[in-house]
Amino acid sequence: MSTRIGILGYGNLGRGVECAIRQNDDMELSAVFTRRNPADVSILTETAKVAALSEAPDWKDKIDVMILCGGSATDLPVQTPEYVKYFHVIDSFDTHARIPEHYANVDKAAKESGHVGIISVGWDPGMFSLNRLYAGAILPEGSDYTFWGKGVSQGHSDAIRRIDGVKDAKQYTIPVESALDAVRSGSSPELTAREKHTRECFVVLEDGADAARVEQEIKTMPNYFADYDTTVHFISEEELQKNHSGIPHGGIVLRSGMTGWNKENKHLIEYHLKLDSNPEFTSSVLVAYARAAHRMAQEGQSGCRTVFDVAPAYLSPKSGDELRAALL
Amino acid sequence: MSTRIGILGYGNLGRGVECAIRQNDDMELSAVFTRRNPADVSILTETAKVAALSEAPDWKDKIDVMILCGGSATDLPVQTPEYVKYFHVIDSFDTHARIPEHYANVDKAAKESGHVGIISVGWDPGMFSLNRLYAGAILPEGSDYTFWGKGVSQGHSDAIRRIDGVKDAKQYTIPVESALDAVRSGSSPELTAREKHTRECFVVLEDGADAARVEQEIKTMPNYFADYDTTVHFISEEELQKNHSGIPHGGIVLRSGMTGWNKENKHLIEYHLKLDSNPEFTSSVLVAYARAAHRMAQEGQSGCRTVFDVAPAYLSPKSGDELRAALL
Repeated sequence: MSTRIGILGYGNLGRGVECAIRQNDDMELSAVFTRRNPADVSILTETAKVAALSEAPDWKDKIDVMILCGGSATDLPVQTPEYVKYFHVIDSFDTHARIPEHYANVDKAAKESGHVGIISVGWDPGMFSLNRLYAGAILPEGSDYTFWGKGVSQGHSDAIRRIDGVKDAKQYTIPVESALDAVRSGSSPELTAREKHTRECFVVLEDGADAARVEQEIKTMPNYFADYDTTVHFISEEELQKNHSGIPHGGIVLRSGMTGWNKENKHLIEYHLKLDSNPEFTSSVLVAYARAAHRMAQEGQSGCRTVFDVAPAYLSPKSGDELRAALL
Repeated sequence: MSTRIGILGYGNLGRGVECAIRQNDDMELSAVFTRRNPADVSILTETAKVAALSEAPDWKDKIDVMILCGGSATDLPVQTPEYVKYFHVIDSFDTHARIPEHYANVDKAAKESGHVGIISVGWDPGMFSLNRLYAGAILPEGSDYTFWGKGVSQGHSDAIRRIDGVKDAKQYTIPVESALDAVRSGSSPELTAREKHTRECFVVLEDGADAARVEQEIKTMPNYFADYDTTVHFISEEELQKNHSGIPHGGIVLRSGMTGWNKENKHLIEYHLKLDSNPEFTSSVLVAYARAAHRMAQEGQSGCRTVFDVAPAYLSPKSGDELRAALL
């Protein structure tokens, strides 16, 4: 029997989940829940319903796993503990510093209701976290590195858009090749923020805005840009649309470590993602973990989980026998 | 309390396990078991014993996890089902075609004795298998590729050594860069064996052997070399010792996939290992899974497992709280 999925929130991530469900024969989309007027929201899946957020609890017997596609700042801290009362849930909560608190809240609600909630699913947190864990467990003597990009940072793009005189903007985070080479050489370098990444900004100005002032404001912005080598390009709205409308991203997790009685042998573990669409890849991870949540729940499990707690076999539609014969 | 480890078989892999245990504060080596006369075997760990293989069952209350370091051809098919009667065990069984049969044998014995046995642990099978599973579950529409090397293939080196007139030899398996580039481009190429890897051989001849005949025998050897572009270098014994005494290896697992309603976005997942010492890296994976086996057993689990069945958190010495705070 298929896993019946609900999507809560229909932005880039929710649409990505809808597309990912289509690629998995054992999953079906039952309904999309939205804060907007459902009549105004058109979805791609003909067999699925669009319903108001307030109706979601009524679907508790018609949906196995609810995939929460809201934002980490204000939506998920409230929604995940709330909706795990009714459904097994998956979220992509990515405010790293607040994960322990979010975990505790979801775990309490999930145990009370007897549901499974898997939080912080995606690629970072998510697949990158898994690779940090595996690599660190295998090579306890070593150093971890995470590089992001080349890709669009929504947070940094938004920060530029808030500057007076800016009409629109896209910011790319780019790993510094020489820093990557140093890590790959096994020299275990200590790298500052500036040494690891550069930032490239494509900015459309409002009519009459002062380019020099905008550039200065970007380059000196604390936390976002001041610690990086930043390049600013002023371009037309047409050019931004034509060349910078995608949401590519990716990155690299590396662990450089040593083995041997006297640490005489070096090893490098590298995990690399190159993604045309950041939200669609994240969504694809969410859907695989929805399969896992449903299976773990069918075994009687409840409570909050992260990618660290989910045995890999739960993610695949293949049986244990099939996996051992085909993939091991 | 530490996990007390036994090593069964003290070749390259067993010595690698000994070194890996030294890097993990929560593990201790109790004893090494050998087919040789224990008095003739000297180990590096001063606090551990060397004992005869026949004595192993007497250690059943003094060892938590026995790491089986024998070969897949004849040792492990017998040893793993045998020793799981007394201990939780880990092996690196790597005859892919016989894994289902080995799994069934170990599972039966492990369930009867109430132990955990984790089989086929290492990097291929092992970490490469895991990456194939994760990537395939995330990107169901796509193609898998595994490249090996650059590294020493023991099987191919042995095959050369069996040729009449060959005193010693080392064979390197090398991925073809243009094939890798084609995969990374997202073009999902279909690649033959010859297109994916080349083979480079360093051969020391016996006095008076016919180099041309040996080269011809290597290049036309069925299964091993006939389907590949093979280069043969004849070198001196000194040169082989000096430049080819290491056991490096590694490789790359890639999945190239598509997402989007009409598969309009491409993604590439790439996992890369670059290893100075193949046996020491494999041993490091074995030791991490020994930690997992001990923990799973403490929870009351029993039976055969593979890397697919082990939740990642079991591999790390860190607690769930620590993992969520530091690595997620």
